[in-house]
Amino acid sequence: MTVRFGLLGAGRIGRVHAQGVAATRKAKLVAVADSYQNAAQDISSAYGAEVRSVEEIEISHDIDAVIICTPTDTHAVLIERFAMAGKAIFCEKPIDLSIERVERCLALVEKTGQALMLGFNRRFDPHFVAVRKAIDEGAIGDVEMVTIVSRDPGPPPLSYIKRSGGIFRDMTIHDFDMARFLLGEEPVSVSAEASVLVDKMIGEAGDYDSVSVILKTASGKHCTISNSRRATYGYDQRIEVLGSRGMVAAENQRPVSIELASGSGYTRPPLHDFFMNRYVDAYANEISAFIAAIVENRAMSPSGADGLAALRLAGAALKSAETGRVVRLET
Amino acid sequence: MTVRFGLLGAGRIGRVHAQGVAATRKAKLVAVADSYQNAAQDISSAYGAEVRSVEEIEISHDIDAVIICTPTDTHAVLIERFAMAGKAIFCEKPIDLSIERVERCLALVEKTGQALMLGFNRRFDPHFVAVRKAIDEGAIGDVEMVTIVSRDPGPPPLSYIKRSGGIFRDMTIHDFDMARFLLGEEPVSVSAEASVLVDKMIGEAGDYDSVSVILKTASGKHCTISNSRRATYGYDQRIEVLGSRGMVAAENQRPVSIELASGSGYTRPPLHDFFMNRYVDAYANEISAFIAAIVENRAMSPSGADGLAALRLAGAALKSAETGRVVRLET
Amino acid sequence: MTVRFGLLGAGRIGRVHAQGVAATRKAKLVAVADSYQNAAQDISSAYGAEVRSVEEIEISHDIDAVIICTPTDTHAVLIERFAMAGKAIFCEKPIDLSIERVERCLALVEKTGQALMLGFNRRFDPHFVAVRKAIDEGAIGDVEMVTIVSRDPGPPPLSYIKRSGGIFRDMTIHDFDMARFLLGEEPVSVSAEASVLVDKMIGEAGDYDSVSVILKTASGKHCTISNSRRATYGYDQRIEVLGSRGMVAAENQRPVSIELASGSGYTRPPLHDFFMNRYVDAYANEISAFIAAIVENRAMSPSGADGLAALRLAGAALKSAETGRVVRLET
Amino acid sequence: MTVRFGLLGAGRIGRVHAQGVAATRKAKLVAVADSYQNAAQDISSAYGAEVRSVEEIEISHDIDAVIICTPTDTHAVLIERFAMAGKAIFCEKPIDLSIERVERCLALVEKTGQALMLGFNRRFDPHFVAVRKAIDEGAIGDVEMVTIVSRDPGPPPLSYIKRSGGIFRDMTIHDFDMARFLLGEEPVSVSAEASVLVDKMIGEAGDYDSVSVILKTASGKHCTISNSRRATYGYDQRIEVLGSRGMVAAENQRPVSIELASGSGYTRPPLHDFFMNRYVDAYANEISAFIAAIVENRAMSPSGADGLAALRLAGAALKSAETGRVVRLET
Repeated sequence: MTVRFGLLGAGRIGRVHAQGVAATRKAKLVAVADSYQNAAQDISSAYGAEVRSVEEIEISHDIDAVIICTPTDTHAVLIERFAMAGKAIFCEKPIDLSIERVERCLALVEKTGQALMLGFNRRFDPHFVAVRKAIDEGAIGDVEMVTIVSRDPGPPPLSYIKRSGGIFRDMTIHDFDMARFLLGEEPVSVSAEASVLVDKMIGEAGDYDSVSVILKTASGKHCTISNSRRATYGYDQRIEVLGSRGMVAAENQRPVSIELASGSGYTRPPLHDFFMNRYVDAYANEISAFIAAIVENRAMSPSGADGLAALRLAGAALKSAETGRVVRLET
Repeated sequence: MTVRFGLLGAGRIGRVHAQGVAATRKAKLVAVADSYQNAAQDISSAYGAEVRSVEEIEISHDIDAVIICTPTDTHAVLIERFAMAGKAIFCEKPIDLSIERVERCLALVEKTGQALMLGFNRRFDPHFVAVRKAIDEGAIGDVEMVTIVSRDPGPPPLSYIKRSGGIFRDMTIHDFDMARFLLGEEPVSVSAEASVLVDKMIGEAGDYDSVSVILKTASGKHCTISNSRRATYGYDQRIEVLGSRGMVAAENQRPVSIELASGSGYTRPPLHDFFMNRYVDAYANEISAFIAAIVENRAMSPSGADGLAALRLAGAALKSAETGRVVRLET
Repeated sequence: MTVRFGLLGAGRIGRVHAQGVAATRKAKLVAVADSYQNAAQDISSAYGAEVRSVEEIEISHDIDAVIICTPTDTHAVLIERFAMAGKAIFCEKPIDLSIERVERCLALVEKTGQALMLGFNRRFDPHFVAVRKAIDEGAIGDVEMVTIVSRDPGPPPLSYIKRSGGIFRDMTIHDFDMARFLLGEEPVSVSAEASVLVDKMIGEAGDYDSVSVILKTASGKHCTISNSRRATYGYDQRIEVLGSRGMVAAENQRPVSIELASGSGYTRPPLHDFFMNRYVDAYANEISAFIAAIVENRAMSPSGADGLAALRLAGAALKSAETGRVVRLET
Repeated sequence: MTVRFGLLGAGRIGRVHAQGVAATRKAKLVAVADSYQNAAQDISSAYGAEVRSVEEIEISHDIDAVIICTPTDTHAVLIERFAMAGKAIFCEKPIDLSIERVERCLALVEKTGQALMLGFNRRFDPHFVAVRKAIDEGAIGDVEMVTIVSRDPGPPPLSYIKRSGGIFRDMTIHDFDMARFLLGEEPVSVSAEASVLVDKMIGEAGDYDSVSVILKTASGKHCTISNSRRATYGYDQRIEVLGSRGMVAAENQRPVSIELASGSGYTRPPLHDFFMNRYVDAYANEISAFIAAIVENRAMSPSGADGLAALRLAGAALKSAETGRVVRLET
């Protein structure tokens, strides 16, 4: 079987996924849609896909699955339309910033029985996968305390911050998903602190740029998350899991691993300075996993429910930061 | 000037400090007291000090300063007696587990005008000192987020846990002091979560073995602390400070730094398995600093007030863990 | 301009280069030839190239350049034929095991004026490139001493060893090229020691499995090379350059960079276990460089002369190992 | 038993050994001799030892053992005198620069039956000891290839170079001893190259500043040694041993292990800049071992014969560098 794809959204992430589809013989990029014609055309000529409208892809019989890389506020409605159109769906996170809207969308998807996979790409990073595998193999015994440090090289444009839903929903949300991926148990409480330390304009836009979070599960496992919108040394992405019998951690990644020694000391280059370079393998692997799940008719993971769970943690963290209380999650 | 010392308490820490005194020509160990005569005798013969009683040392004219390494519940009263006796005092932490008792003790010390230094030895670890120095030199710009991971190789005996004042007061307290040392600003709020993951008996003794803490200062700087009573790989002591211009971190220490490579991978030995080995330099350096402060008539640091501040943070953390609220500190 | 390619040899390296050609819009794989039809067919269907015979490619007007990945003993004659046919040529190393044959081949290529690039892929490894760049930027001052450690995970089949020309010509030759790449000056003398430590059968086949080499340039710079046919911990590939102002080194690469800590210590996974995984980027980059050199009409590097120089060093090393003398190279 | 010591030579190494003697209860520093009275007096007041002349120590009945830290050209004669005087002898390396003189000295020592230990301090470095221990425990299988990189922060004064016997005898000699320590088998051949790259004045003084050496044992094991008189990044001391089942290496040491990350990358401080700081533990441990060998009446290691063997390797290396031939050692 060859999975025939329609790509919705031909921006930078769309291009990455088009490449991911092209890289395997199990799939074929049949069509691409983007309101910006040049972008669609670019992908069309690079991969031999037709430029079609969203509506045309919706009714195309030669399309089995779609990849949704359009702006966030279109995700929920596109998921609904393509679920009803009988396509398997891969959608970039988040489904929506409103928990209620996400719930409504997922209820409809469930009714259609269509497969939906959400783009929490970090679950497919080879290093993080290896950490998860070590846990599964019992290398560290029972998971007890997860530590996540996640820092961006620099803040995004203010325009983005204003519509992103805030740092917890746009940045920490990846760490909430990673926490769930690693804890192997649902967090039941969230404590968070949030500050504006990087750029006052971020505060004036109603957001924070530096946050610390503690999650706790029912059995008492902890996860601490530390985020900053600025790390001059690059895209800092570390996870570490302490267990009853040991600890496993993923190291940071850098473009080249050389070391220069001089009178000033031993210097290695900065980390990647862009998330798409850091997670280039993760993007490719998640599309592979999506294709494999379709071909082998397996459940999708991460699912829409995973997206919802992370969004709820983000909401709880924001509430905790604003009220100075631990927020309990209903389970 | 040679500082003439009396040592109160000839246990394992007492022996370390006796060695610290012996290592410098600026000081001399004149007398040692311990209710356990053999211990006192051992130090006496090793360093040529006389065995005397506490009371004798109190009135000795040939003693300028004392080092208090007796059990915790004797600290406050010994500090008071030796302050009144006009001796400079180095005391192992804590002064007492009761904030009120510490305040009373420090008030009396202040009245006597005697010098009091508290044994927060980690401030004298060469690696942590180098981190502090990097901050002071502006290498990372403004301090924003401190991350402390501090894990013991294994839990202490239950008998110790029962009288230690609990994990926040006996273990995290070192990290509270380190947080203050690194933040350069007083924490004004504390959020903490605490669990029993390592040993149920610890829970039955009314304590926790795994805690996570977020401190926040008035200007919004954060410090997260992660503690566990068990780390199979050794005594895990990491600090990391993110600033506006960079990050500085101290690596873990191990007894030997070799690496063995085989089909199973590249393996370095575990970390130190005992705090006294990990902090051997720190112990020596703190006694040196105490001696230097006496000789040069400089203010003592860390002071009694530093001990009190850390104890208050410990109390606030416990309250936060038990109430599920952020606890604000009066300033 | 799109460079139109013919691929000669559809084995594992051929497949890698087919992928390298497919990855860029500047080139197109037009035809593939292999005496083993299935292999050719595989590449044909994956990349849309026609299966043709070597003779057909030789006279194809829609082919600008060829990539030669056939068995070593066909390289020289194929280079000659395709140079005369007016094609740009990329050939896997070595051109031939006989210096005299290589000289004859290169003389003919020169007469035709055709471009010839040799597959010393390590020059295109991003980490080694970064080392070279650091040198070029003056980061270490004048190059003084190069150290190369290069060890295979395990010995190749005896059948390969018997026709490979021996360890100096099949394995160390990469290091000789790397030495020239890093020294920036021609070696004028070679001292080598060679032993059979890994497998007696290798010795019986007339080869060695463990060699150490010292190269020296006219101005006195040194390069030491250490090779073994066996490293249980993976494909060990290190280079280090000491200069008058500092040192620069490339670290080893592993598939995933996690670390597992337990009572046995801190363990990172073994290195790559296969050269094609270790040098996946290098293979892609060398084909890119070949295409760019054609498009921009630039000189090819590494050239046929580089191949000849490395082969001469290999011959000299063998002679040194067998005679117990330093072998001077004519310059 | 308490070993009663006389110290001959109160320079910087003498002071280190005086401290080593003082650190254990098994020994006592009874007397110190130095032609420079102030130096002797300093040690005398620090450790309560008497200042005596060499002649007085020679006939002292309250002296069991001597430590010889006088200038190199006095070593052989002092060893002979104190062996005849019936004292156990620890002597800094080398015994003499002349192989013939060393042989004569050792013959006399043997006749007296006195214990003689030579100060190859690196054998007592905890990291190198751990490497040797890993080999002994079979962690890497059979030793095959040893790699030693040993570089000084900067060249010694020309005055020293002129009387040191040259780089092979004063610097590489430590690595020759380490090679023997790690190979576990005698080298039977030596190939060496030597250059002047650091400072022309060194060449004018008849010496080299940059050398590379290959040692080979009878069974074919190799050791490569790389030396430079200059490493801007500190005192670079690495050893690595490849075996049939794995590899073990000792990492470099630095005064503090912090890491600073910024836009320029991740920087760790330079290495130690002075051999006495790098090997502080090694110096203490070798004196401990000497004392233990006396107390327990065990054979001394490293012995005079070890010193002679290293000196022979140094002579062979020099001959190899000057003749361009592999030099075979008589065995």
